[in-house]
Formats: sequence, C-alpha cells, structure tokens
Amino acid sequence: MSPMPSEVLSTVEVARELKRLRQINPLIHCLTNEVVQEITANVLLASGASPAMVVAQDEVESFASIASAILVNLGTPYESRLNAMRLAVKVANRAGIPWVLDPVAAGVMPWRNTIIQEFVSLKPTVIRGNASEILYLAGVGQGGKGVDSIDSSQVALEPAIQLAQKTGCIVAVTGKVDYITDGKRTLEAHGGHPLITKVVGTGCSLSALVAAFLVKAPDPLIAVASCCAFVNKASELATAQSAGPGSFHTHYLDMLYRLKPEDFAL
Amino acid sequence: MSPMPSEVLSTVEVARELKRLRQINPLIHCLTNEVVQEITANVLLASGASPAMVVAQDEVESFASIASAILVNLGTPYESRLNAMRLAVKVANRAGIPWVLDPVAAGVMPWRNTIIQEFVSLKPTVIRGNASEILYLAGVGQGGKGVDSIDSSQVALEPAIQLAQKTGCIVAVTGKVDYITDGKRTLEAHGGHPLITKVVGTGCSLSALVAAFLVKAPDPLIAVASCCAFVNKASELATAQSAGPGSFHTHYLDMLYRLKPEDFAL
Amino acid sequence: MSPMPSEVLSTVEVARELKRLRQINPLIHCLTNEVVQEITANVLLASGASPAMVVAQDEVESFASIASAILVNLGTPYESRLNAMRLAVKVANRAGIPWVLDPVAAGVMPWRNTIIQEFVSLKPTVIRGNASEILYLAGVGQGGKGVDSIDSSQVALEPAIQLAQKTGCIVAVTGKVDYITDGKRTLEAHGGHPLITKVVGTGCSLSALVAAFLVKAPDPLIAVASCCAFVNKASELATAQSAGPGSFHTHYLDMLYRLKPEDFAL
Repeated sequence: MSPMPSEVLSTVEVARELKRLRQINPLIHCLTNEVVQEITANVLLASGASPAMVVAQDEVESFASIASAILVNLGTPYESRLNAMRLAVKVANRAGIPWVLDPVAAGVMPWRNTIIQEFVSLKPTVIRGNASEILYLAGVGQGGKGVDSIDSSQVALEPAIQLAQKTGCIVAVTGKVDYITDGKRTLEAHGGHPLITKVVGTGCSLSALVAAFLVKAPDPLIAVASCCAFVNKASELATAQSAGPGSFHTHYLDMLYRLKPEDFAL
Repeated sequence: MSPMPSEVLSTVEVARELKRLRQINPLIHCLTNEVVQEITANVLLASGASPAMVVAQDEVESFASIASAILVNLGTPYESRLNAMRLAVKVANRAGIPWVLDPVAAGVMPWRNTIIQEFVSLKPTVIRGNASEILYLAGVGQGGKGVDSIDSSQVALEPAIQLAQKTGCIVAVTGKVDYITDGKRTLEAHGGHPLITKVVGTGCSLSALVAAFLVKAPDPLIAVASCCAFVNKASELATAQSAGPGSFHTHYLDMLYRLKPEDFAL
Repeated sequence: MSPMPSEVLSTVEVARELKRLRQINPLIHCLTNEVVQEITANVLLASGASPAMVVAQDEVESFASIASAILVNLGTPYESRLNAMRLAVKVANRAGIPWVLDPVAAGVMPWRNTIIQEFVSLKPTVIRGNASEILYLAGVGQGGKGVDSIDSSQVALEPAIQLAQKTGCIVAVTGKVDYITDGKRTLEAHGGHPLITKVVGTGCSLSALVAAFLVKAPDPLIAVASCCAFVNKASELATAQSAGPGSFHTHYLDMLYRLKPEDFAL
C-alpha cells in the first residue's frame, strides 16, 4: 500500500510508441457519447489511427471482433446504446481485444454511477478519467459537476493507485500532471495547457487515442503514458499558435498529424 | 396593444451581464438536436459557462435539478428525447430553474408544430427564434423552410410582443436586428454579420447561451438582450478576420472567449 | 459490356452546374450518420444549399415531400433511423425527388450488407461510394475496413459501370480519380488531395452535396461529376493553405463558399 514513487516517462519511449502507432494504423471501434463523435474521429485520423462508430446491436459484435481496440465512453448513456456497449465489451474480453472505459461524470448521478460501476466490473484494460471521476471510483470524493473536473490530478494519485490495485486495470488520471498507474508502477506525463479544457471532447478523444496506443503494446503502461505525453505536446504547440479555443481546436488536430517520433526522441 | 417603442440596449449593461456570467460560470443542461451538440458545448465553454448534455430518461431529472439553467431545442425531436425534455422541464418549473425554448422550424410540419405548442404551453422563461418561427407562434405567417428564416426580424417585432403578452415568456427574435421583449418593454441588440448564418448551430448555440445569461439575472430581459449583443459583437469581430464560414467558426469561438466586459463598457 | 472510354469533364460544365446550384439554393433533407451531421450541414451551407436533418418517423414524410433532394447515409444505421429512411425514400420515389445513397462500409458486416442491398433495390438516383464499397456492391471484392477505402478508384471503374447497368442508378466512385457513370457514359473528375481523407465526414458530406447538385439537373450525370470536380478544386486550394487536417477542415469550408462559377470556366 505504499507504492514506488511515480516516474516521469522518457521521451524516447514516447517516440517509440508513436512510431508503433503510425506503423499499425489501428482500427478503433468507438462507442462514445453524442457530443464528441466528430472530434473523436478527427483526433484518431490525425494521429494515425482509423476510427469507426458502429452502434447498432445488430452489428456491434461483428465489428468489435475485427477492431484493433474499443472505446466505451459513458458521456450520454441510454439503454439501447448501453446494450451495444455490453455486446462489444463481451467480444473484447473473449477475444483479448484491449478496451478503454471513459467514466464521464462518475459520481454525479445515481443511475449513471450504477452503469459506470457495471462497466468497471467488466475489467477494462484502462480507465481514463479526470480527478473527480477517479476519486469517486476509488471510493473517495463526490464527483465533479458534469464533465469538468474540480479536483487537481495530484489529489487523485493515491486513489488512482488503489483503484488500479482493486480492479486490475491501468488507471490514467489526467489533469495538470497525468498519472498512469497499474497499481505497482506509476508514470507521469507532463506538459499540456489548460486551454484544451475549453474545447469539448478533448478528454473523450484522448480516451479513444489511448485505445489506439494500446494495440499490440509491448508494455501497456508505457503505451498509455506515451499517448498522454503525445497529446500534451500537441496541446502545448497548438496553444502557442492559438488566439482562443476555436483556433486551438484547429491547431491541435494539425499538431497531432504533424508531430513525428523524432520530435520526441531528443 | 400599442407598446412602448423599443430601446437600444446600453453597452454598459452588456459589460455588466458578461461580467456576471464569467463570475458564475453556470452549468447549462442542454437538451438539443443531434446536429449542433458540439458547437453548442464549445460556444458555452468559450463564453464562460459549463455545458452538459444528459439525455437519458433515467437520469435527466437528477441532472436538471443541479443545473443552473436548461435548454430545450426541438431541432431533431423524437419520442424518447421529448420525454427526457418533458422531465427536465417539469424539474425546472418546480424548482424555479430558468429554461429556454428554441422552437426550430416552427410552422413547417404539423407533428412538430404540436410538439412546439406543447412546450410553449409549459411556460419557458425565454423563447428564442428567428422571424419565421416567431411569426408562426404568434399566429401569423407560415414558418420558414427548415431552419433558415425567410423573414426579416423587423416584421416579427409586433408578433413577438403579442406572443410575449399571450404566454408570459420573454420572446427573443433574432435576425438583422434582434428584438427582445417581455410584452411591455422591448430591447434591441444591433450588430452581427450574416456570415454567421452559413455555420450550422450558431442560432441553436445562441439559445444555449441565453440560458447561461439568465442564471441569477437581476433583470432577465436585459440579460437576454446582453447575450444577443455579446454574440453580435463576437460575430462582427470574427467576420472581419474570416475568409469564409470555416474560418468564421474558428474566430467566432476565439472571440467569445477573448471578449471582456471592458470591451463593451466604453 | 465494353463501354465507351471515360471522358474528363469540361470545366465549363462545372461552372454552369455550380451557377445553377447557387441560383436554386436547394433544401436537402439529410438522413445521415451520427458522426458527420455537423460537417454535412456546413458543407451544404458553404456551397450554397440549405440542410435540414429531420429524423422522426412522425414527420419525416412530411419534410421529405417538401425537400429538393434527399440523402440516405448508412454510416450508423439502427432500426428507428432506418424506418425513417424507408419512409423518406418512399416519398422521394413517389414524388420524383432525387435521392443519393451513401453505402458506408458496404461489404464489411453481414447485417449492414443486407440493409445496404435493401436500399440499393429502392433505386436511388445516385450511389456514391469509395472503391471498396462499389466493388462489394458490384459483386466483386470484400469491402474495406470501416469507412476507409483500401482500393484505388481505378480498380472499381469496370465494376461501377456494371453496377450502374444492373441497377439503373448513376454510380459515383470517388478516390484518386472520381468516376461517374450511368452504365453507358462515364465521366472523370480529377484533382483533389488525400489530406481530405484525414477529416471525418468529407466523403459523407460529398454525398449530401451530390444530392444538392441533382436538383433540377438537366443532365444528372454531368451534375454529379461537376459536384465532384467542385469539391476536388476546393480540396486542392484548401490543402495549399493547410498545415494539417485541422486547418484543412477550416479552409475547405471557406473554399466551398468562395469558389465561383468563373473560377472554373477558364
């Protein structure tokens, strides 16, 4: 219960993981919320993955079985979509396909909390959330107001480690510093800029990209942390060119597309 | 039936209302159409509010009760979503939470007209529409073709006043000039640029922002008019930098973010 | 079975067709997938058409009957939406309203294949797809992985001609070169840039714009090919200004808006 101190991820690892992503060009099956489908697809395309949103219960298993990885984002859940998600997760767990859970607004509303706990119990490869969400899932804290976190990521570090130990999932809590932990080892990804929080779907699309980095990852913990570091770098470079959240959105997609492995391995 | 002449809103009021919005950072529960969810969230975030789209009947009441204000936009209605809207409105009316109705394409189709009339009868705090929509709701005119208004806002001024008197709602009819009326007093907001009509969701997201300005407003009529004036200013400044609707969208979000109360109080 | 060689479309035709579109400003009823609704609306608005997404079974017939043309895109099909599409197509076929089928991911999944074949049998005016999709519909090839085509358009030329002959539809297969055929005559539209494939919905919104160009077209084959040529030109000009897919999206919408008939008729 007193884990090793967290380590800052090496940029050499980020370079290697990004190179791997670009070589694989994985197909990511996104079961996500109504609001962020376009930016999620665009973030995956820009970064070097292929998105597909297949949602009908009639075909979701068929597609999940050919996907490289799966995203389940609970931002706007309702019964028919949840059933599709359950079917996709069943396929993933049977076939060993990695999947990421984004527990949007965990802790805020009772029905949603029950849903989120159900999906946590289905053993996602990774849970990616903000501090409020992770605090709630770890059994401390009340959850944020809606999708915005009201806690700094640092307060969620210890709870994230406990959540990882309890569930066997990798837990990524993103914020000012990103902490990525499997309960034994914890990596930090630094950088980024808060302007990113003024564009809807940047957190949700990060979860989709985490799924992409997980595909065939030799070390999933490093893959997830590298994804966060990649996004932070793109966010920083985009902010430097931006006059506000509109231009940030534009430059962010450009930077995800333009950043090369060599830009990290210095 | 012969109301006072309309007054142009003072920029001092706009400055004060914008300052208030930024201090409160209200949480806006958006029940809106399928097409405009992303821009609606981004307009709220850029301007200084927090959006949340909670749509399941299982949790919509729970979330409505903690929201600062609610938006009901009838752009793509269907039964399950309408039931969620009905539940949210019931919560709002019981708890005194302001809510805005955007009666998209009122007058165009019979089933939708019935739905819209039902929501008008639930006494929204504000009805925000274009001239065609307001003409239809006031019992004159045929409605536009889809979401675009084919009437200038001026022809809807008198009908807007009548609609406000009949319903007890504030009515905002936006167009070349925006008229905001409670049936007794009418304010005008000037400015803006027609390029904004070439970007989908700018009207719908204005309605969401009206909800945000209503939160804890000492004078709701002034709050709504200030919202329109704020958006018109951002639209003008964005147009001046834009080569078309793509760059307008980007600059518009930047301007909503960058405009400060001081930029109005001259 | 050995058709005439394909002809490159004249820019004079593109100019004439674009002029016609701008004069008509047609109302396009879009029944499309969840991911691309915003970009589809924005592409139509920028180009000179009016979009409307009416999806409820209760009103879809009412709206289809006043639309200038209809788009059916099967990117994220599910039963209630499919029923709305069936109702709209019935109205279109009865009233002689042109409609376009976008058979997204044809060939990839069995349930979707059945759905797509059903809509093909309803005799769309135009089928617009990528090479993988057209190969599958022509009875050759396996389909792509999700929405991205893995075949070059040229390999689909002969199959596209056969599909047009078999179905009586115009078939447009887009890719490095776009081929538009009615089974007797085949037109080519050149240009464009692959950066467009890194923005989600550019293919889907092209199908919507094809519907717009079909309205009152004296020669539908030329109208469809002109639409492709128009989009290719906008894509080229946008790419020249872009640093990646984010800025491409912005400049692409600007260019669709700014291109004039005179820009083609040289």
